[in-house]
Amino acid sequence: MSESSLLKELVDALRCLPGVGARTAQRMAFHLLEHDRQGGERLARVMAAAMQNIQHCERCRTLTEQTICRLCSNPARDASLLCVVEHPSDVVAIEQATAYRGYYFVLGGRLSPLDGIGPDDIGLDRLEQRLDEGSVQELILATNPTVEGEVTAHYISELAAKRQVSTSRIAHGVPMGSELEYVDSGTLSHAFEGRRKY
Amino acid sequence: MSESSLLKELVDALRCLPGVGARTAQRMAFHLLEHDRQGGERLARVMAAAMQNIQHCERCRTLTEQTICRLCSNPARDASLLCVVEHPSDVVAIEQATAYRGYYFVLGGRLSPLDGIGPDDIGLDRLEQRLDEGSVQELILATNPTVEGEVTAHYISELAAKRQVSTSRIAHGVPMGSELEYVDSGTLSHAFEGRRKY
Repeated sequence: MSESSLLKELVDALRCLPGVGARTAQRMAFHLLEHDRQGGERLARVMAAAMQNIQHCERCRTLTEQTICRLCSNPARDASLLCVVEHPSDVVAIEQATAYRGYYFVLGGRLSPLDGIGPDDIGLDRLEQRLDEGSVQELILATNPTVEGEVTAHYISELAAKRQVSTSRIAHGVPMGSELEYVDSGTLSHAFEGRRKY
Repeated sequence: MSESSLLKELVDALRCLPGVGARTAQRMAFHLLEHDRQGGERLARVMAAAMQNIQHCERCRTLTEQTICRLCSNPARDASLLCVVEHPSDVVAIEQATAYRGYYFVLGGRLSPLDGIGPDDIGLDRLEQRLDEGSVQELILATNPTVEGEVTAHYISELAAKRQVSTSRIAHGVPMGSELEYVDSGTLSHAFEGRRKY
């Protein structure tokens, strides 16, 4: 083999990236070494800093390098609304797509008893404390529409009910721009059940 | 935006990887931060070391962290054969696919006068020295079958002719396993011109 061992190590290390197999990793390594060393050096520097410093926000559990994330420390947002999502990337998606101005709570997963993931593993103890603070009036459940996501939403709605906090679930139905013909039957039946007065 | 600035920087830095756009970079960043910090730390460490230490082999110009690469320092290979390729990745591909046991010379590009890339930019001065050493008896031209690759092969064949070194060009034709119907006309005409006694 003509490959240097450091080059092999780089190709191997790149495979920790999702969706990157042996061939893509090799192409990436050669690209950086031959055409973009500066980019590679910057990536190494930023990656090290990010892995070292990015932790979970103490208030909403999203990813941040501060103790309390930028969003939680923004007093201009509506404290009566709290949106529960599974992942930090969901926060980004909602912020980019909607005009939602409340706060978030990031579970970092979903209830999954078979995998040993219980309420405390997804921060529900902290969510209860948050509800006990008293400012939240509507809890928006935006977990994914999977079996576990639904179970998690249901469990959380009961925590809220005990505290007389009203809950809502984001709508599930036919995606905008799609054609009924190609939508799966589960989605279509959800869309019918969830129909609204026109 | 809820994104921390370091997270944004990481997403941005990941975009130096070929084929990685904004969405993929975001997915990669979240994956590493949420599920594989060790992998991310290792990638940062190896990437920094690679960018710092991997240079070009002084003999064949391939990528290596040694002064002379492992392949060039292997005395068991056949010094009468020298294979000229455009990129270090071509060396890897040939080593993996063939039983070739000679040495390599990596141009690191191809002649392209319009882009200001002349003979010295692709190390042809060093290739001439190599041919002057006298041990090479066959120079195998394995540049890509593009216009510039052909021009480069032709130019190098003239350098070899001056020194009475014989040259050969790897065969171009119908790829194994393909169907004639779907092969482009340039390849098909090459395959006819290059036909051999059966």
